[in-house]
Amino acid sequence: MNYDAVTELALSRGFYFPSCEIYADAQAGFWEYGPLGVALKNRYIELWRRELVRRDGMLEIDGSQIMSKSVFIASGHLDSFNDPIVRCMKCSSVYRADRLVGEVINTVVPERIGDEELYTLIQKHNIRCPKCNGELSKVSRFNMMFKVSIGADGSEAYLRPETCQSIFVDFARLFKVMRCKLPIAIAQVGKSFRNEIAPRQSLIRLREFYQAEIEVFCNPKRLDEIDRFDEVKDVMLRIQDSNGMHEVTASSAVSRGIIPNRLIAYYLALLNEFYSKTGIDMGRTRFRRLADDEKAFYATVAYDFEVETSLGWLELVACNYRSDHDLKGHMQVSKENMEVMDADDGSGNSKVLPHVFELSMGVERSLYCILEHSLYEDMENDRLVLRLKPYLAPIQVGVLPIVKKDEVEAKAKEVFKMLRKDIDAFYDDSGSIGRRYRRLDEIGTPYAITIDRQTLDDGTVTIRDRDTMQQVRVRIDDLKDELLRRLKMP
Amino acid sequence: MNYDAVTELALSRGFYFPSCEIYADAQAGFWEYGPLGVALKNRYIELWRRELVRRDGMLEIDGSQIMSKSVFIASGHLDSFNDPIVRCMKCSSVYRADRLVGEVINTVVPERIGDEELYTLIQKHNIRCPKCNGELSKVSRFNMMFKVSIGADGSEAYLRPETCQSIFVDFARLFKVMRCKLPIAIAQVGKSFRNEIAPRQSLIRLREFYQAEIEVFCNPKRLDEIDRFDEVKDVMLRIQDSNGMHEVTASSAVSRGIIPNRLIAYYLALLNEFYSKTGIDMGRTRFRRLADDEKAFYATVAYDFEVETSLGWLELVACNYRSDHDLKGHMQVSKENMEVMDADDGSGNSKVLPHVFELSMGVERSLYCILEHSLYEDMENDRLVLRLKPYLAPIQVGVLPIVKKDEVEAKAKEVFKMLRKDIDAFYDDSGSIGRRYRRLDEIGTPYAITIDRQTLDDGTVTIRDRDTMQQVRVRIDDLKDELLRRLKMP
Repeated sequence: MNYDAVTELALSRGFYFPSCEIYADAQAGFWEYGPLGVALKNRYIELWRRELVRRDGMLEIDGSQIMSKSVFIASGHLDSFNDPIVRCMKCSSVYRADRLVGEVINTVVPERIGDEELYTLIQKHNIRCPKCNGELSKVSRFNMMFKVSIGADGSEAYLRPETCQSIFVDFARLFKVMRCKLPIAIAQVGKSFRNEIAPRQSLIRLREFYQAEIEVFCNPKRLDEIDRFDEVKDVMLRIQDSNGMHEVTASSAVSRGIIPNRLIAYYLALLNEFYSKTGIDMGRTRFRRLADDEKAFYATVAYDFEVETSLGWLELVACNYRSDHDLKGHMQVSKENMEVMDADDGSGNSKVLPHVFELSMGVERSLYCILEHSLYEDMENDRLVLRLKPYLAPIQVGVLPIVKKDEVEAKAKEVFKMLRKDIDAFYDDSGSIGRRYRRLDEIGTPYAITIDRQTLDDGTVTIRDRDTMQQVRVRIDDLKDELLRRLKMP
Repeated sequence: MNYDAVTELALSRGFYFPSCEIYADAQAGFWEYGPLGVALKNRYIELWRRELVRRDGMLEIDGSQIMSKSVFIASGHLDSFNDPIVRCMKCSSVYRADRLVGEVINTVVPERIGDEELYTLIQKHNIRCPKCNGELSKVSRFNMMFKVSIGADGSEAYLRPETCQSIFVDFARLFKVMRCKLPIAIAQVGKSFRNEIAPRQSLIRLREFYQAEIEVFCNPKRLDEIDRFDEVKDVMLRIQDSNGMHEVTASSAVSRGIIPNRLIAYYLALLNEFYSKTGIDMGRTRFRRLADDEKAFYATVAYDFEVETSLGWLELVACNYRSDHDLKGHMQVSKENMEVMDADDGSGNSKVLPHVFELSMGVERSLYCILEHSLYEDMENDRLVLRLKPYLAPIQVGVLPIVKKDEVEAKAKEVFKMLRKDIDAFYDDSGSIGRRYRRLDEIGTPYAITIDRQTLDDGTVTIRDRDTMQQVRVRIDDLKDELLRRLKMP
C-alpha cells in the first residue's frame, strides 16, 4: 500500500492529522497524534525501551526542550545547523536551495555542498522560481533552530534541534550520580524542533517531532572490548557500502572490516533486533554507510538505517560515530571537566574524554513505515487489514455483542468492564457484525471478542483472530489471561 | 520529611536536577528528569492512564506544542494570560508584583487583583526593590507565553501555555472520526510552557512542565445524567468551601449541594481514587472550592485539588468548569462549527455547543508530593526509606550476589538477565550487603533479590521486602511471576 492509502487511513480513523487545521494560519510541519496514534506511539516507545534501553542497561533521561544559548555555541548548532536558501527576487518565496536544485535537475545533491557550488548549478541550469518564474537570489544560510526569549530581560535560548544535547550537557552529573563505567549508553525520547524551510509529507519531514536517541559513551581505545557482543554475534545485518550490499552476521561484518569495530556492530545489531519486532519488513531495510559528503558535520563514521517505502528509501535512524566532538565542545565552553576514569590497555586506570556513538531515531518516520508495511488489502475477503503486531495495536480488543438483546448486551458490557483497565478495549454495538469486524481490521485490532446467546448458557465467548479470521471459544474466566498472553511483547 | 531532604535525594540519586547547569546562562525554571525521575514519571502517567483514561473510556491525544497565533487569540491567552510586574527604577530588576506584595505584607493576594490596586498596596506599605532598595515602577503586564517565529517569513506562533488548547482546536474532528457521544472526555499529557517571572522551588513552579489534562465535553442541560456515577457514589471526598470542611461521599456531596452536579462529582471522585493509589497521604489532601476572585479567567466553578506539604498546601489539579468559553471562542475565530448533536431533555436530538469541565493536573507537583509523602527516616534501623508504591518505583528490583564468589556472581547475573526486559532491575555487587540495601531503600526499590551459596545448591533466592525488611525464599523458576504479581498496578 502507498502513502496516500496510509494518509487516508490516518485521517479518517484518528491516527494523526494536521495541527491547528481549523485556522488559516496553521503552519506546515506540525501534526497531532489522535487516539490511535498516541497508543501506537506509546507502545512503539515501550518496545524501544524494552529491546534497547532495558536490555542493554542504558540510562534514560528526559530533559528540557528549551536550552540555553551556550549549549548551541558549544555544540556548533548556532554556526553550522543551517540550510542553504534562495529567495525569489520577484515574489519573495523562499526555497531550500539544495532541494530545489535536486528536484529540477533530478539528482541527489550532497548534504555538504557549498553555497557557491549551489548557485553555480542554479545559473548553469537556469533554475527560476517555481511559482512565478522570477529570478532567484544568491544562496544564503537559514539557521533551523527556533529562538525563544526567557524572562523579563529576554535571555536568548533555543528549542533543542536534537534531544542528544541534554545528554551531553548532563553527562558529567549522570556519570557520577549513577556510578557509571564505560561504555555506558544514555537514552532519551522527546520532542525536537527544526524550523524547516520545506516541511512535507505529513510525518516524513516535521518541524516538531519525536526523537528517540541513544548516545553510547565509550573509550576510543577499547571499541572492540564489549562482552555483550556475544549476545548478538549471529544477528544478520544488511549493510550497503561503496562495495555493494552485504548480508552478513554481526561478527563476520567486524572480521571482514565491513563494520570498523565490535561496539558499533553490537549497537547496530541491537537496533536490527528491535526493528525486526516492529512489523517492518526487514527484507526492505538496510544500513547504508554514508560517503563523506553526506555525513552530518559532527560525524566521522555514519550509517543510516533505511526502509523502503512507496516514497522511496527513508532514513529512520542516523547511526553516527560523533567522536569527542560534543563533550569536547561542551568542556571548552563550560569549563566543566567531562573526562572520566577508565582502564586503558591494561596499563591501569587513566582519564579519558569519552567518544560517542549514537543511534538517533525518528519516531514519526518509524511509525509511518510500520503503518505502510502493515496495511494490506485482503481482496479475497474484501477488507482492508492493518496487520500490526498485537503488542503494538492501539485498540487491542474489540468487544462485540452479536445480537441486539438486553441480556447479551449486559453480558458484553460486563466483559468489557472486566478488561478495560488492563487492556485497551473498545465496545462496539453499532452496525452489522461484519461491519464491526471490518472497522476493527483496518485499525489493526488483533482480537475481537463476540458475546452471543451461547455465552449466556455456558459462560464462553469467541475470540476472533484478525489475520486468520478464525474464531475459538474460551471461558470468560480465562479470557483476560488468554488475551494478556497473546498481547505480550516478545 | 521536608523540601530540602527531597531535593537532596533528587539531586544525589538522579531523580531530577537543573537543566543546563554547567552553563552560566542556565535559566531558572527548567529541570531535567534523571533516570529515576523518568521511570517514576512514566509509571505515574501509566497509572493516570489506567485509573482515569482507560477506566472512563476517554480519548487521548498528543498535539503539537507550537501552535498558531489564532489559537491564542481565540482562547484569550494573548489578551489575558499575563502577570502583573514591577521594575526597579534603579537596578532594573523585575518582580511579579502580586507575589512581591504578598511576601512583604505576608498575605495571599487574590489572583484577579487589579494593577491599580496592587500599586496602591506597594505605595501604602512603601515596598521597594528587595535587591537594591530602589523605587518600583507602576504595575504593568507581562504576557507569559513564549513566542516563536516559523519559516523564512517568520509567522508568529506560540508554545502552548496549557495542553488543553490542542483538545479544543481538534474537538470537531475527534468527535466525528471517533464517533463520539456526549459526555466524552479527551485527555492529553505533554509539555506546556510559561514564561514565569519568578520560577522557584525546583519542580513547584517551572517554565517548562508536564501537564496531564482531561477535558470533559458535556451537555450543560444534562449534568446530572451520568450512568457511571454509581461506580463512585460511595467514594469519600474532602471538600473545603466557604462553609468549612466536609468529609462526604460523592453522592451526598451532590444531594447536599456541596458539589453542584453529578458530572463534576463523578470526575472529582475518579481523581480522588487515582490519587489514593499514588501513595499520597489522602488525609492531607482536599478539594478547595475557589472564591470568585481566585479563579482563572475562564472558570465559572472551580476546585483545586490540594496537598499539604512542608511548603504548605500545593495545588496539584485545577478542576474548572470552563462552560463554553473555549469552544465558543474557537468557533468564532475559526468559523468552524463546534456544535454536536445530543438528546436534549428527552425532546429528541438537537444541536448543542458542549460545555467543558476540566481536570488540569501538574505532573511535577504531583511527583514532588509523592516523594515528600513517601520519604521516611527509619530511626530504628538507621536508614532513609522511600516508601513508594511498588508499581511506581523506578528501580523495581535489585539483584545482589551476597558473596564475592565466581559461581554466585555468575548465577546472580543469570537471574538479572532473566528479569531485565520485563522488570526495571539493577545489578549491584559493590560494597557490603547492608550498604547495598540502604542504597536501594532510599530510592524506593521495593524488592531486593539476594543470591547466595544456597542458591547454587537448591535454586532458590531470597526476596527482601523494603518496608518490613523481611526475607522469603522463592525458587528461581517462580521468581519472575512472583515479582510481576507483586509489582502489578491495583
